[in-house]
Amino acid sequence: MSSQELPLVSRDAACCSDLTSAPLSEERAAELAPVFKALGDPVRLRLLSMIASRSGGEVCVCELTPAFDLSQPTISHHLKLLRQAGLIDCERRGTWVYYWVLPEATDKLAALLTRPAEVPTVLASSRPS
Amino acid sequence: MSSQELPLVSRDAACCSDLTSAPLSEERAAELAPVFKALGDPVRLRLLSMIASRSGGEVCVCELTPAFDLSQPTISHHLKLLRQAGLIDCERRGTWVYYWVLPEATDKLAALLTRPAEVPTVLASSRPS
Repeated sequence: MSSQELPLVSRDAACCSDLTSAPLSEERAAELAPVFKALGDPVRLRLLSMIASRSGGEVCVCELTPAFDLSQPTISHHLKLLRQAGLIDCERRGTWVYYWVLPEATDKLAALLTRPAEVPTVLASSRPS
Repeated sequence: MSSQELPLVSRDAACCSDLTSAPLSEERAAELAPVFKALGDPVRLRLLSMIASRSGGEVCVCELTPAFDLSQPTISHHLKLLRQAGLIDCERRGTWVYYWVLPEATDKLAALLTRPAEVPTVLASSRPS
């Protein structure tokens, strides 16, 4: 792929900008897409929210499975995909595996998707680039 | 699916809360997952950012295609998926189709992923639920 038709953006600018700032580099798109893909399933979204909203900060897999009409291996597979995307991590303690969120991953997505507060909505489509 | 093992959340609370506030309802997860899925591809992420970052607010498909080593039909297919997810809309004018973003869609995802500012990071995992 080439991006010769688009304005070049420095890596530093691209790493921290939101969607409205500049076209994403191929590298950043390749980095972020798998994380979005991991969130692109309702079971995984619910699992992530169940873990993220737990006040104690971590959840036993034994508490997650009963909320779904799905088998333990299926839930474990979804949790594995969330883990591979860097959204959660886990540790086995005795019989059970405990999960917690890695908020830096969702922070990156939030930063990409959040429009700059200083740009009024009425000007959002006509602000200077 | 049942959620009898989890605290019940009112629809109003669930519609506006972030991931750390409460487990997502099945309905909200089913609504949001397809939007995340649409973003789970590097080409679509780049296309969305190219449209969102255009200062004029809209982009001709004829300006998007040259940035990729992909055929026009492939680009159009990716644009169709972004459109079906409610992330962009388009209009044909003469020969070309013009695309613009629907920022309400990304705003919803950003709201879900953004942690509450009032919760200090050091307390984020132990705040009262």
